[in-house]
Amino acid sequence: MNNKVAVYRKEHFNAAHRLHNPEWTDEVNQRIFGKCNNPNYHGHNYDLIVKVTGVPDTRTGYVIDMKILSDLIEENVLSRFDHKNLNLDTEEFKNLNPTAENIVMVIYQLLRAKLDEHLDLQVRLYETERNFVEYPA
Amino acid sequence: MNNKVAVYRKEHFNAAHRLHNPEWTDEVNQRIFGKCNNPNYHGHNYDLIVKVTGVPDTRTGYVIDMKILSDLIEENVLSRFDHKNLNLDTEEFKNLNPTAENIVMVIYQLLRAKLDEHLDLQVRLYETERNFVEYPA
Amino acid sequence: MNNKVAVYRKEHFNAAHRLHNPEWTDEVNQRIFGKCNNPNYHGHNYDLIVKVTGVPDTRTGYVIDMKILSDLIEENVLSRFDHKNLNLDTEEFKNLNPTAENIVMVIYQLLRAKLDEHLDLQVRLYETERNFVEYPA
Amino acid sequence: MNNKVAVYRKEHFNAAHRLHNPEWTDEVNQRIFGKCNNPNYHGHNYDLIVKVTGVPDTRTGYVIDMKILSDLIEENVLSRFDHKNLNLDTEEFKNLNPTAENIVMVIYQLLRAKLDEHLDLQVRLYETERNFVEYPA
Amino acid sequence: MNNKVAVYRKEHFNAAHRLHNPEWTDEVNQRIFGKCNNPNYHGHNYDLIVKVTGVPDTRTGYVIDMKILSDLIEENVLSRFDHKNLNLDTEEFKNLNPTAENIVMVIYQLLRAKLDEHLDLQVRLYETERNFVEYPA
Amino acid sequence: MNNKVAVYRKEHFNAAHRLHNPEWTDEVNQRIFGKCNNPNYHGHNYDLIVKVTGVPDTRTGYVIDMKILSDLIEENVLSRFDHKNLNLDTEEFKNLNPTAENIVMVIYQLLRAKLDEHLDLQVRLYETERNFVEYPA
Repeated sequence: MNNKVAVYRKEHFNAAHRLHNPEWTDEVNQRIFGKCNNPNYHGHNYDLIVKVTGVPDTRTGYVIDMKILSDLIEENVLSRFDHKNLNLDTEEFKNLNPTAENIVMVIYQLLRAKLDEHLDLQVRLYETERNFVEYPA
Repeated sequence: MNNKVAVYRKEHFNAAHRLHNPEWTDEVNQRIFGKCNNPNYHGHNYDLIVKVTGVPDTRTGYVIDMKILSDLIEENVLSRFDHKNLNLDTEEFKNLNPTAENIVMVIYQLLRAKLDEHLDLQVRLYETERNFVEYPA
Repeated sequence: MNNKVAVYRKEHFNAAHRLHNPEWTDEVNQRIFGKCNNPNYHGHNYDLIVKVTGVPDTRTGYVIDMKILSDLIEENVLSRFDHKNLNLDTEEFKNLNPTAENIVMVIYQLLRAKLDEHLDLQVRLYETERNFVEYPA
Repeated sequence: MNNKVAVYRKEHFNAAHRLHNPEWTDEVNQRIFGKCNNPNYHGHNYDLIVKVTGVPDTRTGYVIDMKILSDLIEENVLSRFDHKNLNLDTEEFKNLNPTAENIVMVIYQLLRAKLDEHLDLQVRLYETERNFVEYPA
Repeated sequence: MNNKVAVYRKEHFNAAHRLHNPEWTDEVNQRIFGKCNNPNYHGHNYDLIVKVTGVPDTRTGYVIDMKILSDLIEENVLSRFDHKNLNLDTEEFKNLNPTAENIVMVIYQLLRAKLDEHLDLQVRLYETERNFVEYPA
Repeated sequence: MNNKVAVYRKEHFNAAHRLHNPEWTDEVNQRIFGKCNNPNYHGHNYDLIVKVTGVPDTRTGYVIDMKILSDLIEENVLSRFDHKNLNLDTEEFKNLNPTAENIVMVIYQLLRAKLDEHLDLQVRLYETERNFVEYPA
């Protein structure tokens, strides 16, 4: 048993998106992605749970100050994606299909680059209350 | 005291939208609607709660069969709005700003037209967990 | 504007039930009640929200002590219905179809009989997260 | 049928409090308020739902801009009570027992004073997920 | 770090059950299982969360199409257990006590048999909001 | 694959606390802990999820009887912390800063000492819906 604790911070953002593979015909896209292929986009309230694991600092009792973690998510994730069209308004999904799986991996990379290397990171993303994803598994 | 009971059915749909008043300049639209004015749209998971009030039928014990109510919502609301761009893909919001207030009034009219006149109707719409509306008030 | 406040207490119970009208044939019961007509019963986690409205006592600041309200619900509702088969184990539903509408009206009567007449009462019952009822409407 | 719509905004704050009536002996306070009478205080995550009812503005489609309503709650309620000891740190509860009933009436008065007189107001306050209150009833 | 992502799908079903060990006397069954031993059954709304882990397909961006996963759960789990009496109406629990632990292991086996062997599987089952289980641990 | 199952029990308690490091000046404490440093305390509704992992008993089908687990949490955790001021009313936090990280580790130790050594234990603690912690990680 080590003395690591996991801390979780829940945030959310709203975005429009469309699932589409440009290498396929419209028929194949429609068959594979169904309603999610609507060319005019649809949207979601995405709930995001960021898990950071480490040894609490003995002076503060914190793994990481939740205010600092919340600001990190705001600056690197919410400011990019909130109230945006993921396909049209973001660099990350210009050439990457914005499935929940791809979005959660992108969010992981954005946060991993900014987080102290002594801390472990995992990200969970709710596309709806009934469909959600987690990375790394 | 009468013997009316209210029954509620919860459904949901996902849609993209943009808040915009075509009679205003871009600057005014941006000032009034902020991030919700994004020309490329954003989106939401809308939760919908439909309340129907009436006297239970003594043979069934039902105000209305929940399966019938659910089908009514599916046919008249979800089939129109789910996985759609409200501004581009629907007749109802082509010339009506899709604020939560306007969406809930439209949904009320769509359902009111199909519901037995002996039954009362009220609709609640959650745009997010923290912003929701109800009609009639 | 009066100075009445509404207080709400949430409780829950688990029960089995079957929807059935003994005056009908099996075919009609099956057509009307579908899966809910299963002769071997099915069940639910019922969530119950009891709303009591009155003028707060100036000495306590309470409309009603929540401990007293909770005990009242325990003694008159939960002790009768929790972990029971509503059709077989209860007097109330021996000859009354245990639809959500009928259950909520029975719970109202059980609590109304025990509650101070200066207090108003309303009961909401969740059969599932998506199907719920309220009495009086 | 009028054309009024109700809009709701959910906010939250965390606070410590103690239920106590200074006109009573310690024994009576302990008997009436039980664990809530702890002289060293205990605390809650209060969830607050503010309901504002009015006719939507035809130019914006809004009853009230949710950003304006959220700021109003922040300035008049959250800034007073969040991360505070209600009994020690606030004017409002220096001489008023901070029961949920009294807190919700105080919040109503604070917001009513700042809200356009054409708009109706109702406030719901969750002390816990299972105990909540509403004013006016 | 591998590039596996976990995807989750939430479903639910309602069922009646009774906890009972036929090798024990009624007294022992009553002492061990308490209210859950009621011979006339009681019931629950079971919430089911199915977790599937794998490498996303580069063409679709999916670990598994959620529609396919949802259909798999419907055909192999919900169609067997929804609106059923687990003890009387199912093969699986004719001779197996339907505790949450046993139900979750049965659901795991039913889904594991149908799921691509390159995908990992874990199942969580909520018997109530406050009691839930997960397999494999 | 082993045959271990995880069972979870959710409980809750309400408490007041203050974050403070007595080795620091008031200025440093205020800068590090912000609003959480309020000398008069603030409070939370803490939600607690206790996860116990083991092989189900073949006679009962239980990893552990949920009633026994619930009583264990009541006796060792809730009775110490519910409706208490963590800094003033408890031995555990007299000289330990009651951050969520420290509280969850203390709860783990209290329960680990009482739980059968063949069972694994993990504890999750929600300070708010958006901030929560888990130990061991």
